[in-house]
Amino acid sequence: MSDTPRDPQTDDHAPAAALPQGHHDLRETDREENFSPSRALRDDIHEAIDAEDQARLDLLLDPLHPADIADIIEGLTPSRRSSFLGLWSGEIDGEILTEIDEAVREDVIDALPKAVLAEAVREMDSDDVVDLIEDMDEPEQQEILAALDESDRAAVEQSLTYPEYSAGRMMQSEVVTAPEHWTVGEAIDYLRGEEYLPDQFYHVVLVDPRRHPIGYVTLGRVLAARRDAKLTDLIEDSFRTISAYSDEADVAFVFNKYHLISAPVVDEAERLVGVITIDDAMSVLDEEAEEDILRLAGVGDESSITDNVTATVRQRVPWLGVNIVTALLAATVIAMFEGSIEKLVALAVLMPIVASLGGNAGTQTLTVVVRGLATKSLHSENTLRVIRREMAVGIVNGMTFALLLALVAYLWFGDTMLSLVIAMAMVINLFAAAVGGVLVPLALDRLGADPALASPTFVTTVTDVVGFFAFLGLATWILL
Amino acid sequence: MSDTPRDPQTDDHAPAAALPQGHHDLRETDREENFSPSRALRDDIHEAIDAEDQARLDLLLDPLHPADIADIIEGLTPSRRSSFLGLWSGEIDGEILTEIDEAVREDVIDALPKAVLAEAVREMDSDDVVDLIEDMDEPEQQEILAALDESDRAAVEQSLTYPEYSAGRMMQSEVVTAPEHWTVGEAIDYLRGEEYLPDQFYHVVLVDPRRHPIGYVTLGRVLAARRDAKLTDLIEDSFRTISAYSDEADVAFVFNKYHLISAPVVDEAERLVGVITIDDAMSVLDEEAEEDILRLAGVGDESSITDNVTATVRQRVPWLGVNIVTALLAATVIAMFEGSIEKLVALAVLMPIVASLGGNAGTQTLTVVVRGLATKSLHSENTLRVIRREMAVGIVNGMTFALLLALVAYLWFGDTMLSLVIAMAMVINLFAAAVGGVLVPLALDRLGADPALASPTFVTTVTDVVGFFAFLGLATWILL
Repeated sequence: MSDTPRDPQTDDHAPAAALPQGHHDLRETDREENFSPSRALRDDIHEAIDAEDQARLDLLLDPLHPADIADIIEGLTPSRRSSFLGLWSGEIDGEILTEIDEAVREDVIDALPKAVLAEAVREMDSDDVVDLIEDMDEPEQQEILAALDESDRAAVEQSLTYPEYSAGRMMQSEVVTAPEHWTVGEAIDYLRGEEYLPDQFYHVVLVDPRRHPIGYVTLGRVLAARRDAKLTDLIEDSFRTISAYSDEADVAFVFNKYHLISAPVVDEAERLVGVITIDDAMSVLDEEAEEDILRLAGVGDESSITDNVTATVRQRVPWLGVNIVTALLAATVIAMFEGSIEKLVALAVLMPIVASLGGNAGTQTLTVVVRGLATKSLHSENTLRVIRREMAVGIVNGMTFALLLALVAYLWFGDTMLSLVIAMAMVINLFAAAVGGVLVPLALDRLGADPALASPTFVTTVTDVVGFFAFLGLATWILL
Repeated sequence: MSDTPRDPQTDDHAPAAALPQGHHDLRETDREENFSPSRALRDDIHEAIDAEDQARLDLLLDPLHPADIADIIEGLTPSRRSSFLGLWSGEIDGEILTEIDEAVREDVIDALPKAVLAEAVREMDSDDVVDLIEDMDEPEQQEILAALDESDRAAVEQSLTYPEYSAGRMMQSEVVTAPEHWTVGEAIDYLRGEEYLPDQFYHVVLVDPRRHPIGYVTLGRVLAARRDAKLTDLIEDSFRTISAYSDEADVAFVFNKYHLISAPVVDEAERLVGVITIDDAMSVLDEEAEEDILRLAGVGDESSITDNVTATVRQRVPWLGVNIVTALLAATVIAMFEGSIEKLVALAVLMPIVASLGGNAGTQTLTVVVRGLATKSLHSENTLRVIRREMAVGIVNGMTFALLLALVAYLWFGDTMLSLVIAMAMVINLFAAAVGGVLVPLALDRLGADPALASPTFVTTVTDVVGFFAFLGLATWILL
């Protein structure tokens, strides 16, 4: 597997981050070609699969990065994927397997010859093996664990004792450590003599005799220092350990906040059990943001562009189901005022405007609050200030749009009192949107629920009910 | 500035990623204490500021990580912030300045004594200086540039020649390079002899005599290899260069996809001009996701929890303004059927349900499509498949909820034909939601607009208009 850009074979097909000269704005160019396999390459591969031309397939796929091969496999139609696996499953290695989306990975694993799967798993870092098998059934897990060396198996089994989505599941057990009393020279000699080192490591972790990490030294400092320098004199300020029980989202947050590159993971007794590197933290950060976006939209948080119709329907029906209940609640409010609407049908025309603007203002507020909680920029210190700000914003926006809407309503229906009613309803509803938008996610968070998941439903229910009730109620009271 | 966890002073106050034993679920604990300055510490600091007790302030702030000091400064009320800056601005260094949120940074910079600012800027990496000054006016920029050494100034000025949000602005110019013919021993001797090395570096970039990067070697490999090994024999497969003109979002994507730790940046002539490290790519990834979330919610993409009322109103009014126009459009559709509503007021009761469910289904679809585009998992190869899937999902969900709603409507109003009408309207509107939800973001993306920004408005307009028109139109045609 080589993707050195100088290889002409690669230059034709492999993605290169380097763009052609002068491509300042990627949006305006066919940017996808630069970061994932090109359309032409995909077409060639499809042809090779359909022609069952294994040699051609090798020629096309070998130069690619495992992440791109995974992309291509994910992009195949189910029937073509099964032909592909028949032809090429022997070539699938640990790196490719690690990169494949979970939705597709199971199919791929099922198609792999046992020996290929065992070999692939043996190549993987312990965190990738954990990721691969944590959702499998017990017998399947055992089968894969059996393929590992004893020490690797122990590491994976250790990881699996930590809760799902914890630092213990994210970490790899392969850590480069040195006794705290070593010099730079001793460390270098040890590294030169060590047969097995992790693929990627950025620090030497110093441990005391009971394996408590007491600091780390970046490799840059080790390289730049004299051989007789003591490692303890080179320790980085940025050093911090992570509990194996920490939530993975918090780990990602800590990496991003403190610019960590790697961090040792410790157990209950503060003993070193593994290390987490920033690339894994970056993936988690990406997934967490993805989850928030999908949850706020009422889409299952594991939904993917590669899902089929059944999976997609299953993810979306629940929230639409909740939505129909809340919509019926709003309809009940309207039904209370049927008599008024019969007398003044303009009410039916205008009422959705009040509800719609309230819903949107509520969404604005709740999104800012949900993100503030997710990024920990909203905390006990500034909560009260944010609540006050949102209420003030609700009143200002309410009055702004009340004025605008009153004018429109007057021009349309020529009824001053109707204009007054819609203006009052608008102020009330945008204030309700602000209060709901800020208090609902805060309350859900305090109760231990995910605010991204439930807030939108609650808040739009508030704005629909308040919007219809305020507008129709005021109209009934004032106009009729 | 020390935050070594063994320091008892630090242990009291500094955040530690390591959590107390057995805290598996952070949601249920006072988790904010673990990742940002505790409430108690903040209170102590506020007291010290109010008492103008500079010595106490030093004692409290010195042990903290610059990112936490920045957090505290951001969390101060404007009046307390100005007292704080009066007391402590002399202590603010480059690291703290880099961490402060842009919304607050300008105030801080204005309050800094010129000498302190100059010193702070001299400590910063070139990418952080660029980030600091890129939004400043020309005279202010010049003042800061004047504080830099000639070579640093040249590096910053070079960066500023690249477009905003490009790799050229993200990169730092400090790169550790070695001629391609060097051995490991030569590289180590060079590093030991070099007085100035970047704070953090993970690779030695090999360059040819014309400064074209031809590969890189991880420091781990340099350390583990024998002194006489040739660097070219240790080159990593993962090597890829990034054009200085690449969009920063694409840079973040490439880092995340290919698990890069650092990547050399090249100019138009493929010559090395700098390096981007993963921590900066991680920040960009985080910001991009944040922007998408805020844009989808119709909130200004630079909004922050620390903004004041005026800034918040300014960010939110535009989208609410657009929303009122689209709501009026929907109202116009309703007005076309005033006569029908007068005759059958149940229509007014039920019509918001059809529109609301359509809006939510449209939001689900458009969010998945917008994210697919942002993560480049939606591309020319699978677009057609996704369009077909969404339409199928729209029909299935439409029929599911049509049935449900028909039943509810029948139980409520006892009118079979009304039930039939709402069922038909529901199928039509959820199909429209699917079509709009998938085609609108795709079209906007093709036109070079940001789909996250404009899609929600367009799609809910479609579902409101289609929903009201289908329901009221069919009712008028069939029932009246």
